[in-house]
Amino acid sequence: MTTMEIVNFDHMSASTLLPEVQEAMINAIRENYGNPSSQHQMGEKASSALEASRQSVARLINCANPKEVVFTSCGTESVNHALKGIAWAYGDKGKHIVTSNIEHNSVIRSLRRLKQMGYQITSIPVDGYGRVNPAHVAKAITDETILVSVMHSNNEIGTLEPIEEIARITREKKVLLHTDAVDSVGVVPVDVQKLGVDLLSFASNPFGGPTGVGGLYVRGGTRIWQLLDGGVQENNKRAGTENLIGIIGMGVAAQLAARDMDRRLAHFKGLREKLLRELPHHVDECILNGHPEHCLPNLVSVSIKYIEGESVVLMLDEENVAVSTRSACASGSLRASHVLLSIGREFADAQGTLVITFGVENKGEDVDRFLQVLGSTVKTLRNISPLYKKAGRG
Amino acid sequence: MTTMEIVNFDHMSASTLLPEVQEAMINAIRENYGNPSSQHQMGEKASSALEASRQSVARLINCANPKEVVFTSCGTESVNHALKGIAWAYGDKGKHIVTSNIEHNSVIRSLRRLKQMGYQITSIPVDGYGRVNPAHVAKAITDETILVSVMHSNNEIGTLEPIEEIARITREKKVLLHTDAVDSVGVVPVDVQKLGVDLLSFASNPFGGPTGVGGLYVRGGTRIWQLLDGGVQENNKRAGTENLIGIIGMGVAAQLAARDMDRRLAHFKGLREKLLRELPHHVDECILNGHPEHCLPNLVSVSIKYIEGESVVLMLDEENVAVSTRSACASGSLRASHVLLSIGREFADAQGTLVITFGVENKGEDVDRFLQVLGSTVKTLRNISPLYKKAGRG
Repeated sequence: MTTMEIVNFDHMSASTLLPEVQEAMINAIRENYGNPSSQHQMGEKASSALEASRQSVARLINCANPKEVVFTSCGTESVNHALKGIAWAYGDKGKHIVTSNIEHNSVIRSLRRLKQMGYQITSIPVDGYGRVNPAHVAKAITDETILVSVMHSNNEIGTLEPIEEIARITREKKVLLHTDAVDSVGVVPVDVQKLGVDLLSFASNPFGGPTGVGGLYVRGGTRIWQLLDGGVQENNKRAGTENLIGIIGMGVAAQLAARDMDRRLAHFKGLREKLLRELPHHVDECILNGHPEHCLPNLVSVSIKYIEGESVVLMLDEENVAVSTRSACASGSLRASHVLLSIGREFADAQGTLVITFGVENKGEDVDRFLQVLGSTVKTLRNISPLYKKAGRG
Repeated sequence: MTTMEIVNFDHMSASTLLPEVQEAMINAIRENYGNPSSQHQMGEKASSALEASRQSVARLINCANPKEVVFTSCGTESVNHALKGIAWAYGDKGKHIVTSNIEHNSVIRSLRRLKQMGYQITSIPVDGYGRVNPAHVAKAITDETILVSVMHSNNEIGTLEPIEEIARITREKKVLLHTDAVDSVGVVPVDVQKLGVDLLSFASNPFGGPTGVGGLYVRGGTRIWQLLDGGVQENNKRAGTENLIGIIGMGVAAQLAARDMDRRLAHFKGLREKLLRELPHHVDECILNGHPEHCLPNLVSVSIKYIEGESVVLMLDEENVAVSTRSACASGSLRASHVLLSIGREFADAQGTLVITFGVENKGEDVDRFLQVLGSTVKTLRNISPLYKKAGRG
């Protein structure tokens, strides 16, 4: 293995902590904050830091009131809290929930759990780009429906969903709307008021904050059960002593994301366009996944025919290039991605898929190095691929 | 306000981060770990750090297998996971749970939530020292009982409960036993195998680790539903990307707690004895709460007659001495402590209670300063206390 620096093209799993975020967290560690719920000055200092972070995060997603932000321990907790908390709180009104076929595991498995508890789930299909048709959502809603949950952006193919249009429907039908915006917040503009959602899940890591910190937007006045019962923290919506060091990191990351949004968007788009433009010169016979326009700027999903994505990941790793085949939350699973199957990819192509996600520190040279290494890796793998031979290409 | 250094006698709310823990967390921040679930070298490095912490924690509580440790985002999550996860998993077997009258809010409110979901709860009284009588537990168990949850140590009065004896009963009756050991683990020896419990909740903060990190011991083979559904993290027991920086901090804190246990116990006992010995020279008419022997060494609970504990906290804070009236998780509540009422304190005495909790950095001089400031504070408050006048003491 070379001593070359690692090219991190797997920011979806763990983006690099931004230097300003590192500094803020290190200061917080040295500061030795108290418990925000304590009544003495140590508690007050902790409480001020907590509320400052809440304001930064609330500003990033344009909450009407910072109290609408509930800090959680990750995006997954946020999603579990939203879906189960609403299902339990409104269980007397109805037990039907509508979702899409391409949600993250945290949504799929939370809903599967609710099914075990007597709820009915309707999951609607997506088109070849991974887009939900709002008309299908309208059709799926019944008198028993209490909640619709459709993701803001897909974590495997980057497609952005028509949340505003879906929100118009749910509002009209007086059904609550949750969106899993874990891979959107801090990456693309997300405005909870403009979107018209009632609940929105996000995490700190996709925008350069630490892992293990997330948040749930709960529109003021929305009835929801706590997932974590106990103390009166988080305006009585989430018990438990806060991960203050992590929350401080997320607060700074949120400030930076708001400040640098336009510059980052341009930067990501530049990298993405370069990669898409030059990819065909290095690898032939591959399929781009996701919507060409309604998409995250920092994600490229490509199905490379006749090979296995996992082999590519391991071989690129030998060359100090980090990419992913899919959500880190699903790694270890041998099944093909439900997202790729839902948009019509065949099983073999789904298995040959790479997800490349950029961070702010990536440069054009990183794309060059990635493509060069990818080209030779794919060549090597196809030379030993029975599929490649069978297709008469070997 | 003076510029004197703060005497932190409120370690229960937020203990000082130990220097070695600070250093490890700062290194982890600078190291820029990846996501432990990723398949490339960044992921592997993160995964190794995660598992090293798991081993340190498992060693501290003497697990048979490190996989029995599930990392959570706090003690409260751990308790919620244990109680709800077992209730849901065993709901087909029975819906009855036995607990005690002096549990932490996370237990009380999780069980209240389960009650809303159709479970029956039996809560058993304690004696004047706050001890549960194991025979009462045995009597409360019915054919419908699936779980007993009794805390290891009480967070307000420090009393240690007879968990080993209760475990003998639950094992005989084939009922699961959970214990909330949040204020015990890392402070007093806790051995899950010797205790014989099936589930045990703990948090990092009481032993010098960061807030926002905890863990749940789940005896191998115990069926439990996830509280957070989604990815396959934590051996499929807790989904969500891990708070790796916090977990690394907890791992180091666990190592230090195991190494220094005897020394710390002696140190805490010395401070406690000094405080108890000298208190009567500074404040008369006060009642010590909790068991004199079966108790946490780092906690003193004292009900001071004729005054309000909250006023004492605020006045001591002016003198840079941090103490608490009760659990930080319950602050903001105006009701008298259910723990103090359960051990027979009158309402007024319960309101006049201080909880003093030591940390490893506290010194004998801190006790001197605390007592001196407490003496004059109590004098001032009693001089304006109608209760004091009414009792003919003014």
